[in-house]
Amino acid sequence: MAEAAKTLDGWYCLHDFRTVDWTSWKSLSSDERQAAIHEFLGLVEKWNATQTEKKGSHALYTIVGQKADFMMMILRPTMEELNEIETEFNKSKLAEYTIPAHSYVSVVELSNYLPGDEDPYQNPHVQARLYPILPKSKYVCFYPMDKRRQGEDNWYMLPMAERQSLMRSHGMIGRGYAGKVKQIITGSVGFDDYEWGVTLFSDDVLQFKKLVYEMRFDEVSARYGEFGAFFVGYILPEEKVSAFLHV
Amino acid sequence: MAEAAKTLDGWYCLHDFRTVDWTSWKSLSSDERQAAIHEFLGLVEKWNATQTEKKGSHALYTIVGQKADFMMMILRPTMEELNEIETEFNKSKLAEYTIPAHSYVSVVELSNYLPGDEDPYQNPHVQARLYPILPKSKYVCFYPMDKRRQGEDNWYMLPMAERQSLMRSHGMIGRGYAGKVKQIITGSVGFDDYEWGVTLFSDDVLQFKKLVYEMRFDEVSARYGEFGAFFVGYILPEEKVSAFLHV
Amino acid sequence: MAEAAKTLDGWYCLHDFRTVDWTSWKSLSSDERQAAIHEFLGLVEKWNATQTEKKGSHALYTIVGQKADFMMMILRPTMEELNEIETEFNKSKLAEYTIPAHSYVSVVELSNYLPGDEDPYQNPHVQARLYPILPKSKYVCFYPMDKRRQGEDNWYMLPMAERQSLMRSHGMIGRGYAGKVKQIITGSVGFDDYEWGVTLFSDDVLQFKKLVYEMRFDEVSARYGEFGAFFVGYILPEEKVSAFLHV
Amino acid sequence: MAEAAKTLDGWYCLHDFRTVDWTSWKSLSSDERQAAIHEFLGLVEKWNATQTEKKGSHALYTIVGQKADFMMMILRPTMEELNEIETEFNKSKLAEYTIPAHSYVSVVELSNYLPGDEDPYQNPHVQARLYPILPKSKYVCFYPMDKRRQGEDNWYMLPMAERQSLMRSHGMIGRGYAGKVKQIITGSVGFDDYEWGVTLFSDDVLQFKKLVYEMRFDEVSARYGEFGAFFVGYILPEEKVSAFLHV
Amino acid sequence: MAEAAKTLDGWYCLHDFRTVDWTSWKSLSSDERQAAIHEFLGLVEKWNATQTEKKGSHALYTIVGQKADFMMMILRPTMEELNEIETEFNKSKLAEYTIPAHSYVSVVELSNYLPGDEDPYQNPHVQARLYPILPKSKYVCFYPMDKRRQGEDNWYMLPMAERQSLMRSHGMIGRGYAGKVKQIITGSVGFDDYEWGVTLFSDDVLQFKKLVYEMRFDEVSARYGEFGAFFVGYILPEEKVSAFLHV
Repeated sequence: MAEAAKTLDGWYCLHDFRTVDWTSWKSLSSDERQAAIHEFLGLVEKWNATQTEKKGSHALYTIVGQKADFMMMILRPTMEELNEIETEFNKSKLAEYTIPAHSYVSVVELSNYLPGDEDPYQNPHVQARLYPILPKSKYVCFYPMDKRRQGEDNWYMLPMAERQSLMRSHGMIGRGYAGKVKQIITGSVGFDDYEWGVTLFSDDVLQFKKLVYEMRFDEVSARYGEFGAFFVGYILPEEKVSAFLHV
Repeated sequence: MAEAAKTLDGWYCLHDFRTVDWTSWKSLSSDERQAAIHEFLGLVEKWNATQTEKKGSHALYTIVGQKADFMMMILRPTMEELNEIETEFNKSKLAEYTIPAHSYVSVVELSNYLPGDEDPYQNPHVQARLYPILPKSKYVCFYPMDKRRQGEDNWYMLPMAERQSLMRSHGMIGRGYAGKVKQIITGSVGFDDYEWGVTLFSDDVLQFKKLVYEMRFDEVSARYGEFGAFFVGYILPEEKVSAFLHV
Repeated sequence: MAEAAKTLDGWYCLHDFRTVDWTSWKSLSSDERQAAIHEFLGLVEKWNATQTEKKGSHALYTIVGQKADFMMMILRPTMEELNEIETEFNKSKLAEYTIPAHSYVSVVELSNYLPGDEDPYQNPHVQARLYPILPKSKYVCFYPMDKRRQGEDNWYMLPMAERQSLMRSHGMIGRGYAGKVKQIITGSVGFDDYEWGVTLFSDDVLQFKKLVYEMRFDEVSARYGEFGAFFVGYILPEEKVSAFLHV
Repeated sequence: MAEAAKTLDGWYCLHDFRTVDWTSWKSLSSDERQAAIHEFLGLVEKWNATQTEKKGSHALYTIVGQKADFMMMILRPTMEELNEIETEFNKSKLAEYTIPAHSYVSVVELSNYLPGDEDPYQNPHVQARLYPILPKSKYVCFYPMDKRRQGEDNWYMLPMAERQSLMRSHGMIGRGYAGKVKQIITGSVGFDDYEWGVTLFSDDVLQFKKLVYEMRFDEVSARYGEFGAFFVGYILPEEKVSAFLHV
Repeated sequence: MAEAAKTLDGWYCLHDFRTVDWTSWKSLSSDERQAAIHEFLGLVEKWNATQTEKKGSHALYTIVGQKADFMMMILRPTMEELNEIETEFNKSKLAEYTIPAHSYVSVVELSNYLPGDEDPYQNPHVQARLYPILPKSKYVCFYPMDKRRQGEDNWYMLPMAERQSLMRSHGMIGRGYAGKVKQIITGSVGFDDYEWGVTLFSDDVLQFKKLVYEMRFDEVSARYGEFGAFFVGYILPEEKVSAFLHV
């Protein structure tokens, strides 16, 4: 049996994609719509307070194309909190005018690369990556992925050393995009249908294509990557929520 | 032809996942909602009585993400009883405000590892596992799985001795999580679309990820495991049902 | 080119799975529901008369889990009759309160194992199997299946003699369940999405799991079987239809 | 690169499958239903006139099982006309009471087997096959298919001569059903999700099963055939449309 | 690791497919329908102005078959603009009577074939292809595609030189259709579920079939092409929008 990679695990993560039911939303009076927006911004304010206290983070993006109209990405110290936030949103007025489009449940994950005698959870650099405050980048990209287990191309049958070496060269590509793309890897084995979620942030949407395409020629992706649906979105700052929902 | 593994079979099992239609639920009067909750808790009370008599068991969990809002997991001595319970719920008031999201039909299953001259069904340890009272753990994880039959990776073409040896080392991983994760395997060949259901219980949701990930590097999963959708949830004790459904 | 197996073909078969829309069903008055049930039982009475005349057969089962609430399995001498029965049900009052969940179109099929100089359609044993009166067993199991055509595992490229020898040993397993499970094979090449439908009847639902699992280790299933969705159900005698639909 | 087969292309073809929404259809008054049927039969009359002028052809069949309730198969000299006919039907009263169930867009296709110095489009036998008047057979069968491109089984990597020889023996099977089954092949590369549509007509529905099953043992199907969903139906002459829609 | 192909990237592209809800559309008064059409044509007018300024382009086509009723293809310099256009349409009156059927997010892409010392983005021929004004051809064809990564057929593991040589011969086929088919390739790695979108324009719909079929015998497609759904449509000039929507 191949040795399992050790992981460090940080905040739990919910990607929650929604489609707006514009027709029924328009059937509301302007006052009712305002009330619903106000209530939603109240939720966001609570999330902001949590973020200020460094007890979580979140991001709002509108999604391009018909897969969804917007995405809420939420990070929290426990899975229970994600469940509560989701249920609170579901009970809100605005939720009555949205249709669930997709969701993904995972946890921020790092490979443990520190010497064995140090507690990585005490390392400030590690902490910053396990409990990240999400950036305000203009664009977001999300997709889930698996490592392939198929015939000769079976990641999980490779020896640890070979996986490490392959991942090292794979990581080099990512590092080439430092300053252009911020990447958050979340693990979802046992939580959702793929093994990982990848969330990319950038002010230049083209960098998502360049990064993912370049990686696809790397053996880790070329032979061992299985990809789910891709979502791409544009930032929705809370001060633009009203305009986005204005009809 | 490879020899089929012998199984011991216990209680029949229904995993029943539901999404709440919050919009129509909110359209009810508070009294109507209370009546619906009261009726549902009456069903749970009956299930509790059955459990007290050790004639079955059940668990309620809210589900994280959009796959479902809650899950009822029901164990009973006969398939007919599962069918009755499901129909009784379907006819209830609460059911009018839920949307079926997913279900899974199976039976608690153990491999027969006792010497051939003993009746395993009389063994108290075996009985406790075939007719389990479900724990009150904070978190649940459910997923169905198959053993692969594909090209060189065909579980069902392996000789019995090789399968036994592979399963033994696989079981060792599970045992490493004793006290942290309780695992219930249910067989569903002939009953539902995968060959097994796996239900994990733990007070620490991260243990699900660690366990499933570690197993994935074991040859049984790496070469022979095919996995369906994963559901993860948080316990919904009956005294919290009202709060969960409060709008 | 491999020689095609010769088949004997009997009655045409429709498996028709329906989900009850309990919410709208409950919105009817008790009298309206009674009228709808009465009309449906009138259809069943006609089917009974046809069965008494040995011009067809049928079975009603409730289905466990969310895949459907009940199944009507109908056998008739012509495909046209199946189409008429289906349309007649669709026009009925009860149908307004059901949602089509799944269906399968096929024809009872036997392999021709008689000496070439005998007309198998005149053989009474063959007739009993081609035009079967469905049993009143407590449980039913239905699934469709294909023979695999993939790389080295291509059933349709095997020589006839090898297929015959494999099927013979496969049939031995089935025979081990004689008296416990009744099996009806229907062919659906050219009629529906899989090549065969398998309908099993038993008073002991566990026998379905034992039979299908044991067969899965046989080379015919292990290397060449591709399986669709599995449905399992409990008998719904017409005198219980009212109780099943009582709300 | 393997040489592409030359094709002759005739009338464009739309298979349009619809499910009747019986519940809302019944909610109409008898007069409204009559008006809707009358309007639909007016469309069919126009199609009949086109067929009489040999400027197209069409067929109406009810479909067995839940995949659809009826199918309109339409042949026309241009794709634009198919689009117009489809839109005209969509705007009709009857269409309000049907739900789109499936459709397929293709063009009648023949392999060019004539000597190179003859214009096949001037050959009367070729013309009759490229611009066919659809028969009034009792039963229809439709399915789409691809030629496989998978590992060792890659049709498109075979040399032309090998493909021709394989297709010749494949065609022999079809010819064995001459007089029993009429087959119309339509090409859909670039038009719809599979590469071909196959529409079979016969007065004996069992011949569909025999033909498709026999072909499946032929190398062209066994190694290279990928099949989509199968639809089987019974003829709906226009004088029976009223009865079919009578509720 | 294989070297990634360099790409040139032009305008961002949204393919937005919609189905008309004819039943609810007909329930509007003629005046309301006129107002909705008028509002939509106002959007198109804005798009026309953008196109006149060479700051984007767009095309409207009706789609044949049930996959959609019409498609809007929009090109813009930024992804943000696509998101705004989509949201503006979603808020329009007409959108209330359409159902999202499919969408695809991508960016016009060329392989960089110019000598390394020239800035290709300054080359007028390259500019014309990166920022194309869409033609008014009678027919359109759209499909997404991947390069295969499967066992021996793994495009991304091929050396650059081999990929270049394969693509060169592939491109020769396309060039054979010059003047008959205009092809726009858009890259969607990181943006949507496939790696590329292919949009073909022609006045002769049969050329789509001939081109795609001929290419399928080329090794690039035969061994390495994976294709998604195909859509085929007929041009909808804005002066025909009223007629198309007339009921």
